[in-house]
Amino acid sequence: MLLLRSISSTASLCQRKAFQNLLRGFASKNREIPALTKERYPVKRGQFSEVTDRDVAKFESILSGSGRVLTQLEDTQGYNIDYLGSVRGYGRVVLKPKTTEQLADIMKYCNERKLAVCPQGGNTGLVGGSVPVFDEVVISLQLMDKIEKIDEYSGILVCQAGCILGTLEEKVNEKGLVMPLDLGAKGSCHIGGNISTNAGGLRLVRYGNLHGSVLGIEAVTAEGRIMDLMSNFKKDNTGYHLKHLFIGSEGTLGIITRLSIFCPTASKSVNVAFLGLENYDAVKNTFLAAKRGLGEILSSCEMIDAASLDSCTHHFNLNSPIEKYPFYMLIETSGSNVTHDEEKLSSFLENSMESGLVLDGTVTNEPTKMKNIWQLRELIADSLLKDGYCFKYDISLPLDQFYDVVLAVRDRVGPLATKVTGYGHIGDSNLHLNVSCPKFSPELYKLLEPFVYEYTSNVRGSVSAEHGIGFLKTKYLKYSKQPESLLLMQQMKQLMDPNGILNPYKVLPQV
Amino acid sequence: MLLLRSISSTASLCQRKAFQNLLRGFASKNREIPALTKERYPVKRGQFSEVTDRDVAKFESILSGSGRVLTQLEDTQGYNIDYLGSVRGYGRVVLKPKTTEQLADIMKYCNERKLAVCPQGGNTGLVGGSVPVFDEVVISLQLMDKIEKIDEYSGILVCQAGCILGTLEEKVNEKGLVMPLDLGAKGSCHIGGNISTNAGGLRLVRYGNLHGSVLGIEAVTAEGRIMDLMSNFKKDNTGYHLKHLFIGSEGTLGIITRLSIFCPTASKSVNVAFLGLENYDAVKNTFLAAKRGLGEILSSCEMIDAASLDSCTHHFNLNSPIEKYPFYMLIETSGSNVTHDEEKLSSFLENSMESGLVLDGTVTNEPTKMKNIWQLRELIADSLLKDGYCFKYDISLPLDQFYDVVLAVRDRVGPLATKVTGYGHIGDSNLHLNVSCPKFSPELYKLLEPFVYEYTSNVRGSVSAEHGIGFLKTKYLKYSKQPESLLLMQQMKQLMDPNGILNPYKVLPQV
Repeated sequence: MLLLRSISSTASLCQRKAFQNLLRGFASKNREIPALTKERYPVKRGQFSEVTDRDVAKFESILSGSGRVLTQLEDTQGYNIDYLGSVRGYGRVVLKPKTTEQLADIMKYCNERKLAVCPQGGNTGLVGGSVPVFDEVVISLQLMDKIEKIDEYSGILVCQAGCILGTLEEKVNEKGLVMPLDLGAKGSCHIGGNISTNAGGLRLVRYGNLHGSVLGIEAVTAEGRIMDLMSNFKKDNTGYHLKHLFIGSEGTLGIITRLSIFCPTASKSVNVAFLGLENYDAVKNTFLAAKRGLGEILSSCEMIDAASLDSCTHHFNLNSPIEKYPFYMLIETSGSNVTHDEEKLSSFLENSMESGLVLDGTVTNEPTKMKNIWQLRELIADSLLKDGYCFKYDISLPLDQFYDVVLAVRDRVGPLATKVTGYGHIGDSNLHLNVSCPKFSPELYKLLEPFVYEYTSNVRGSVSAEHGIGFLKTKYLKYSKQPESLLLMQQMKQLMDPNGILNPYKVLPQV
Repeated sequence: MLLLRSISSTASLCQRKAFQNLLRGFASKNREIPALTKERYPVKRGQFSEVTDRDVAKFESILSGSGRVLTQLEDTQGYNIDYLGSVRGYGRVVLKPKTTEQLADIMKYCNERKLAVCPQGGNTGLVGGSVPVFDEVVISLQLMDKIEKIDEYSGILVCQAGCILGTLEEKVNEKGLVMPLDLGAKGSCHIGGNISTNAGGLRLVRYGNLHGSVLGIEAVTAEGRIMDLMSNFKKDNTGYHLKHLFIGSEGTLGIITRLSIFCPTASKSVNVAFLGLENYDAVKNTFLAAKRGLGEILSSCEMIDAASLDSCTHHFNLNSPIEKYPFYMLIETSGSNVTHDEEKLSSFLENSMESGLVLDGTVTNEPTKMKNIWQLRELIADSLLKDGYCFKYDISLPLDQFYDVVLAVRDRVGPLATKVTGYGHIGDSNLHLNVSCPKFSPELYKLLEPFVYEYTSNVRGSVSAEHGIGFLKTKYLKYSKQPESLLLMQQMKQLMDPNGILNPYKVLPQV
């Protein structure tokens, strides 16, 4: 094959382990404990009760068994700090129910007592949505990790919300299926958290979004009502499609406890190509060529700029399989016939190189080599954190203006930033703009926000493509949503959570 | 190729025309005008105002221009009778706005005056959802048929809700795209109606459902609030995903006025196979073989029983391309490479015939022949109506028990029915069970309902896979939904439509 080259030995498997540890919260000692959220950001505590010893005793009576009600600082600290180290709460109690009924009892009690609650999955969110802002009771779904059914014929997986995405991927793989989503945090993120935040990830271009894949949901509301919206069918038009209220509302309307999700048939053939390109225009046109030439087997189309790849190879001591170029693309195909897929990919790559769109590239179908190439993409986010602190923007933009914002920001912040990088899912018009620096800098923060959001709004983009709004972006919601829609959101919140106890200060702007 | 045979001359193009006329309402003289809904079914009129001449004058002032406010019986009759002739209202006025603002003005006025309203798209629904039950004001979206944008690069179509699906299909085809849904009624159904009812259709197995494909919606609520939930991105996590409230709520929470929808790249290669099989088990196993052997190019997988095909060939004077068998399957592939697709399909068919799963078959990629084969599937519903009257059930069932219900019903109703047939989207576990008879028979009705719904509920199926609940199925909603979910639906309705004026008597059971 024209482009096939051997890949120099790149990342070892231990990097994945390190990555997972990194994701697992704030155990690592070499990261600064962030300031309390209430001190760093202008936010006022709601009129909620404070947790008393009597409340703790009640929680213990609902959750019998050791390690189910955590109250010691060394146990609760990790649940109060987000993955990025950008926010920190001081919830004094962490609860770990095992069943939907236990969770419903907890919510009924908290609602009566007006105790605010923060639901938490794998705590891998990037917008401060999964940790307390003040002293909210943390409800961790960690122990709700039961896989109930994997049906290889219909492709349907039924499980509890606390299952780890990577574990589910392994289990459905054994039945010849794949999970319809894949993302860098899969080693620790929970499927319930993925659905609550409507996670996008790396394979959306092929398998669509979670509103399409999730067939049923069970959720507990703020008042402890159990909403059984489970269904095992792709077609089920029986009344309002209420499950979507819980997909992407980031735990503010209810806590997802169980789910049913459609898993596509696993591909017999997977190939990964890593390409070098001269400029962004070539990236855009290569995407179009891939869409047309690879058609139904295109399963990922990612863009990486030079600064992103440099950060990743430098901090994790990895090697790129090709020389240095201003831009790179990672293109993955998944199909049912090895020969057909290789023919399609060869033909696409030959055409792209002959036309000058692609300057260099490597392609592989060996699992270890594919994993190594994927690491170059998946570890970028973590590598940037190693600069000290990282401002992260996750925006959707029209393809014509997709990369301009990186140049504009680079120009605007100058030497205040260590790096300004852009990478992301060009196949879904989704850019990850990252600005790293030695530590949180108010000066840099002011240069970046609301600039990035105004820029995005001006080209009619989305100020949050896949990360959500959480705590950090509530005041920027207005850049993507009209007042009438915001009002309806508030009415919905009032209906579903009259006391406002469920994940307060998140998603909706404070009034 | 092993199975390739020439197809005998089948349906002429005029059948499509006839089909469209049939769909267009109740113009045809040879169909009985049904009894008024209020006489045939036990339903009580709500406390709404009645339309006065002053109201008509107000509507005329909002909608200037001729043919925009219909009040003559001969003009309004077609809008008061559903496609199946199962329900009839007596709305005395039909309104045809052209803009969202006009519609908002109408709704504000109707809400103040407490005038009930029935929104109507192409009036092709099968559950009595799109016509008045009593004297509701009909709002037809017919004149809101503007295509605003088709972007061939991102694949995004933006248009008004009254566009006809078939017209959109033609227009996006010109840009190398396809609509993500396709259904028999495409010649007259509106995209807004499709989305309001979360239509499934023939290609869901390939392109997923509308909750996944629809990127943005604009809707007008009962109070005349314009909800701008438009977005042109596949990833847009900015607050609650409210658009899904309007997808599948059948016009009871709002009227969809504009939308943005993702259209996949058109396939360069399409093939259709029509197969004969011995029994249902062979059908089920052939579906599994197709899923695995055809993988990413499988775009439709339909089952047709002998009684369904006989009805279609008889009433429309069509010929089947193969001999008579107890069961038939229509399998469509869509892909980007003609040679690859033919190889996959040949290999799948050879294996299926060698193993004895498939007894006979024909395969074609000629457009006219493919269309003729598709007609054998698409015209079944209409052919059954030609028996006089047809009870239609659209249910999702586990594949293991998929066809048993047809046998059970056939046994139960005996000679009261002209035909009891089963066909449908086996690829999505969706069966269309049809019971035809000379005219509406209360005796047959009682034998069928609630029997079919109880049967479905007992195997944990869905009592409405894709047709929705409309007016005819409200009392059966409880077979697929729990009381707590029903309560939340009612609360949602109360929030969005405090006076209950929007499509009353539909979806939610009457209290």
